[in-house]
Amino acid sequence: MSSMRMLISRASRILSSGAARSEVELALLLSRNNLTNLRTMATKAVTIENINPNILKLEYAVRGPLVIRAAEIEKELEKGAKKPFKKVIRANIGDAHAMGQTPITFIRQVIACVTLPELIEKGGYPEDVKQRARDILNACGGKSVGAYSASHGIEMIRRHVAEYIERRDGHPADWNNVCLSGGASNAIKNCLQLFCNDIDGKKSGILIPIPQYPLYSATLAEYGLEQVGYYLDEAKGWALDTAELERALRDASAACNVRALVVINPGNPTGQVLTRENIEAIIKFAHANNLFLLADEVYQDNVYAKGSKFFSFKKVLTELGPPYSGHELASFMSVSKGYMGECGLRGGWAELINVAPDVQANLYKCISAMLCPTTLGQTAVDCVAKPPQEGEPSYELWLKEKTAVLSSLDKRAKMIADTFNQMKGFKCNVVQGAMYAFPTIELPPRAIEAAKKAGRAPDVYYAFKLLEETGICVVPGSGFGQRPGTFHFRTTILPQPALLQEMLDIFKDFHEKFTKEHS
Amino acid sequence: MSSMRMLISRASRILSSGAARSEVELALLLSRNNLTNLRTMATKAVTIENINPNILKLEYAVRGPLVIRAAEIEKELEKGAKKPFKKVIRANIGDAHAMGQTPITFIRQVIACVTLPELIEKGGYPEDVKQRARDILNACGGKSVGAYSASHGIEMIRRHVAEYIERRDGHPADWNNVCLSGGASNAIKNCLQLFCNDIDGKKSGILIPIPQYPLYSATLAEYGLEQVGYYLDEAKGWALDTAELERALRDASAACNVRALVVINPGNPTGQVLTRENIEAIIKFAHANNLFLLADEVYQDNVYAKGSKFFSFKKVLTELGPPYSGHELASFMSVSKGYMGECGLRGGWAELINVAPDVQANLYKCISAMLCPTTLGQTAVDCVAKPPQEGEPSYELWLKEKTAVLSSLDKRAKMIADTFNQMKGFKCNVVQGAMYAFPTIELPPRAIEAAKKAGRAPDVYYAFKLLEETGICVVPGSGFGQRPGTFHFRTTILPQPALLQEMLDIFKDFHEKFTKEHS
Repeated sequence: MSSMRMLISRASRILSSGAARSEVELALLLSRNNLTNLRTMATKAVTIENINPNILKLEYAVRGPLVIRAAEIEKELEKGAKKPFKKVIRANIGDAHAMGQTPITFIRQVIACVTLPELIEKGGYPEDVKQRARDILNACGGKSVGAYSASHGIEMIRRHVAEYIERRDGHPADWNNVCLSGGASNAIKNCLQLFCNDIDGKKSGILIPIPQYPLYSATLAEYGLEQVGYYLDEAKGWALDTAELERALRDASAACNVRALVVINPGNPTGQVLTRENIEAIIKFAHANNLFLLADEVYQDNVYAKGSKFFSFKKVLTELGPPYSGHELASFMSVSKGYMGECGLRGGWAELINVAPDVQANLYKCISAMLCPTTLGQTAVDCVAKPPQEGEPSYELWLKEKTAVLSSLDKRAKMIADTFNQMKGFKCNVVQGAMYAFPTIELPPRAIEAAKKAGRAPDVYYAFKLLEETGICVVPGSGFGQRPGTFHFRTTILPQPALLQEMLDIFKDFHEKFTKEHS
Repeated sequence: MSSMRMLISRASRILSSGAARSEVELALLLSRNNLTNLRTMATKAVTIENINPNILKLEYAVRGPLVIRAAEIEKELEKGAKKPFKKVIRANIGDAHAMGQTPITFIRQVIACVTLPELIEKGGYPEDVKQRARDILNACGGKSVGAYSASHGIEMIRRHVAEYIERRDGHPADWNNVCLSGGASNAIKNCLQLFCNDIDGKKSGILIPIPQYPLYSATLAEYGLEQVGYYLDEAKGWALDTAELERALRDASAACNVRALVVINPGNPTGQVLTRENIEAIIKFAHANNLFLLADEVYQDNVYAKGSKFFSFKKVLTELGPPYSGHELASFMSVSKGYMGECGLRGGWAELINVAPDVQANLYKCISAMLCPTTLGQTAVDCVAKPPQEGEPSYELWLKEKTAVLSSLDKRAKMIADTFNQMKGFKCNVVQGAMYAFPTIELPPRAIEAAKKAGRAPDVYYAFKLLEETGICVVPGSGFGQRPGTFHFRTTILPQPALLQEMLDIFKDFHEKFTKEHS
């Protein structure tokens, strides 16, 4: 962006000077289309000066400048550019299928059948696939996935999600409190929007972990909400210390009304899995301070480490009993993660627990203007919420595919942490869950100076060098937040084993070279 | 909502009085779940008092209280309730498949093939279907629709959309300016968000037609933007008079900075198709007043009346030449309307024309946090942007299906306007395009009094009576806006011909009875 802005301001100067030679120079710099734009720049209705200022502030590192550069490099390679590497390795985003994970057959068969209903009779699919497709079509307007659904989703699928939650937690779930969405991000944004309200002249603040998944920082910036960061404790495997929550709340209270607490479990980018005791302490803290709880639990199926177990906030809250069992909570889930990795289909849900009925009604009203989440994404949600059961024809294959994905992720989670820990200059916590490692890197003082000269944060400087020299695309720690003076990056564990090994080998060589060059 | 709030405030009073008898009464009124909620009501983090106030204001009549009641009635009928009718006729929403329209085979075959790639070889589909599916998969990460796409969509599909626009308009379109989205609503909201900025202590204002599609009023309320209504001229077939635009702009200028102008063409709910001259005048007005143009052109395929023709704002603006050809414009399109009616798939796009490059880059940055529109919705967009061409194996069937849908809509558009105009108490403009009629109704003074007593707007009172007594669900005119003292409703033209005739007959009887009862 900043280079684009420089270009435009330079171009504007050239244009206003009226120099003919400069026009030629300009035409070389810009396409004809952009040139037309520049001529009328002065009279644009929307300019960088009068645009929504929150949009200027918003940053989303997972798809930020580094990732834009990675795409450019891919195009350069396609066109035959000579580079010290042959391909870009995209370890920047939790996009399993893009990295070679294969889809779960049951999900794809059901979606194909509801899309083209003649396949139900003619496709030769298992009976449970056919029955599921019929059930979903019967729940659609005009028996077509081309009809709008209710804004909070198809009732049958919401019921299946409630049943899934009941099986998961051992406690009742009310399908009326399940709100389907086009991916968890959508549901999280809708929920955060409830808090946009300046009370007594103070903005509303939201507690989020540092490091965090940048959907949160981006959404808070977009909505003009105050980001109140609490640090996860790297030395204790990224544990969540309630004393740090107290500290963050205390420090922020003068500047804003802190109204909600976001917890990501299993953690993104940090890969920790919270213990039950930790969750209990967090709920008690939220209750004592009247904070709405947002539990981002999209990685609930991705738990690898021995001794680690996923406990939902809903389960722990329910089992704590009154008054905690009445505390407000929204829990988010997605079909993009877990063993399915169906990112492109856009399916997810929120379960709203103990939310005031009129607040919930207003939330449902608000989403109604967007009509509905995609019915095919909802179909994927249905397959995840109600997978084939033992004895049903699709069960064996489904279990085999699911197990293969999860056990391979398990191996890669261990491999990545072990390898980084064997490399000089890296330190990496155990990847207990989710799909990421977030190692700390030692950067020599001369690298920090060089970064300063280049106008970049040291970790951003490092990640750009890594990309340009090796083709490996990771996201610098500053995109997620980190304690001042420490440097990290997030890498996914998603490259298939051989590619992951290759990536780690390249990484090691690069880091040695980088350290030598900057010492 | 208001009865729910009364109930809750009553319940709160009973609870705080602590009367045991009242608790029993309360348990009868409320579920256990709600009761638990009430106990902790005082300590809720989000209440109706501290919720985002914009969400309280937001209304979306197409799915408002009347439609919620329609769904309740359907459930009552399912359970065997005795009513003076057997079914609800949903004429409230432009949901073609829900009303019996069948999908276009080509679209569904391609989606089935990209979902389950084994179908490409095994499904026995036409060669152009197979090739399209292969092309789309090759454009997806890991050759799977389960991978995220770029946030503005798959490059190949954006290129196809640009080619579609070029064919439509006869002028170049740059694929870099095409931004795919999960339905047009999503793209429109993202675009309106650019204007959220109070300048010199004044809010930004957006000119929208009255009557309007309530996505606009809802979004402006949600974003805290000022709604600046300009009236369409019912007496002139809902034409758009630039003198009225001048009037609206003048009246609003003291209170806000008017920055953009929304035009819906073909009109929703009003069904008019703007003439080329009219569009020229609107563009000149927008240019003279430095207003960003938002052209909602989702009904561009739905033009029926003799002499009516769709001209895109892009085409007219381009052909006007400088300075108008450099004016900022965003044009929106959807796969939910037209001949395809694929509402549930959520596919759409915006073309951004003459938008400042840094503004556009910020818009693209902003949507990146939501990752991507659904890949299967994008697949539908691809099929619409690049339909089978003459000589290709799917062409004949595609053309037959498309023509059947559009000619049937054409007949129904005429039938509905003609029938209303033959009925006493109704006056209906020609439905030149889109999918709706917006007739005016005469309401006797006693009906207006009765509505006042019932605490409802007269047209809302009428529409509720219609629903309760006949099962017909239309949307009252006040949900779209209308000149004070006039009463309308919007009905879709989507019920299949026999059902539409039945609906109009029932409507006629109801109106006669209603008029008699209220005179």
